[in-house]
Amino acid sequence: MNAMTAQNLRSAFGGESQAHMRYLVWANKAEKEGFPNVGRLFKAISFAEQVHATGHFKAMKDESGDFQVTAGAGFGLGTTSENLQGAINGENFEVEQMYPAYIAVAELQNEKAAIQSMKFAIEAEKVHANLYSEAKEAVDGGKDVDFSEVYVCPICGYVEANGAPDKCPICGAKKEMFIKY
Amino acid sequence: MNAMTAQNLRSAFGGESQAHMRYLVWANKAEKEGFPNVGRLFKAISFAEQVHATGHFKAMKDESGDFQVTAGAGFGLGTTSENLQGAINGENFEVEQMYPAYIAVAELQNEKAAIQSMKFAIEAEKVHANLYSEAKEAVDGGKDVDFSEVYVCPICGYVEANGAPDKCPICGAKKEMFIKY
Ligand SMILES: [Fe+2]
Ligand SMILES: [Fe+2]
Ligand SMILES: [Fe+2]
Ligand SMILES: [Fe+2]
Ligand SMILES: [Fe+2]
Ligand SMILES: [Fe+2]
Repeated sequence: MNAMTAQNLRSAFGGESQAHMRYLVWANKAEKEGFPNVGRLFKAISFAEQVHATGHFKAMKDESGDFQVTAGAGFGLGTTSENLQGAINGENFEVEQMYPAYIAVAELQNEKAAIQSMKFAIEAEKVHANLYSEAKEAVDGGKDVDFSEVYVCPICGYVEANGAPDKCPICGAKKEMFIKY
Repeated sequence: MNAMTAQNLRSAFGGESQAHMRYLVWANKAEKEGFPNVGRLFKAISFAEQVHATGHFKAMKDESGDFQVTAGAGFGLGTTSENLQGAINGENFEVEQMYPAYIAVAELQNEKAAIQSMKFAIEAEKVHANLYSEAKEAVDGGKDVDFSEVYVCPICGYVEANGAPDKCPICGAKKEMFIKY
């Protein structure tokens, strides 16, 4: 694998791994604040970030060794409204800045596995940002969000509330494969 | 919180989050290679790294915002023996280099929450390294390791195979609190 694509994939892996972890902490906080459905959404999207991190890791399975990895990550444990805003900011950064840049380099270098893994991620992040925005609107209105079930595609990290699609709109995976939260 | 301690904690959080993720991928590989107990150990220690990452994140709960985080991380998806060696290297780096340096700075700056969180981590990493070494010896001899149950302390990330201690030797948590894998 070309060095620049490998470096970008390690950075994306670092960012996804930290997002996965941050969302678990924020899920716990949402539950404590009396927003169990926001907690469910954070847990579901945390798993989606695990799907992305795992995809990136496997795309560079032959790039063994120890590296210093630089990645963007959000911090702070605020109110659930603040945490949702932090999540929206992180997702938008990935959609607008990080993945377009990394995908452009992977395309320049014709790195097919990296392109695939990152295209799945960028499409899923758009959906994550929208779901977090919907949740923030509810919380800012003093209510929990109306997501009694949240489904995650284990292939690409696409997320849908209140029911799984017949076929994943990003990767085509079948309804039966979705993981329910 | 002092800037250097906050930067070090973010780096440790980044490293722990990536170790958590890497061990889940390696757990899956161990199961596929016919080493379910090594898979169990990877999953249990993955959870211990989540305990560390969460502790670090909470120790800097008021340090909100988006940052570029640089952290050491291992990559590559090899045989289970190779993956165990990668895990041992990562644990030893934390025990011998990363945490001693970061704890020294936190002590210089009298950052009590950071010292606590990182002292729990360094003590637990020593145990992780030993358990991975035991697992590697078994795998290199062609057998699965003899760990039919693995217990994790949810406060400090201490791990014990084949039974939980009455009291956690690192943090003092009671037997009933341990999580079984
Ligand atoms: Fe992601
Ligand atoms: Fe996302
Ligand atoms: Fe999908
Ligand atoms: Fe750790
Ligand atoms: Fe460890
Ligand atoms: Fe403990």
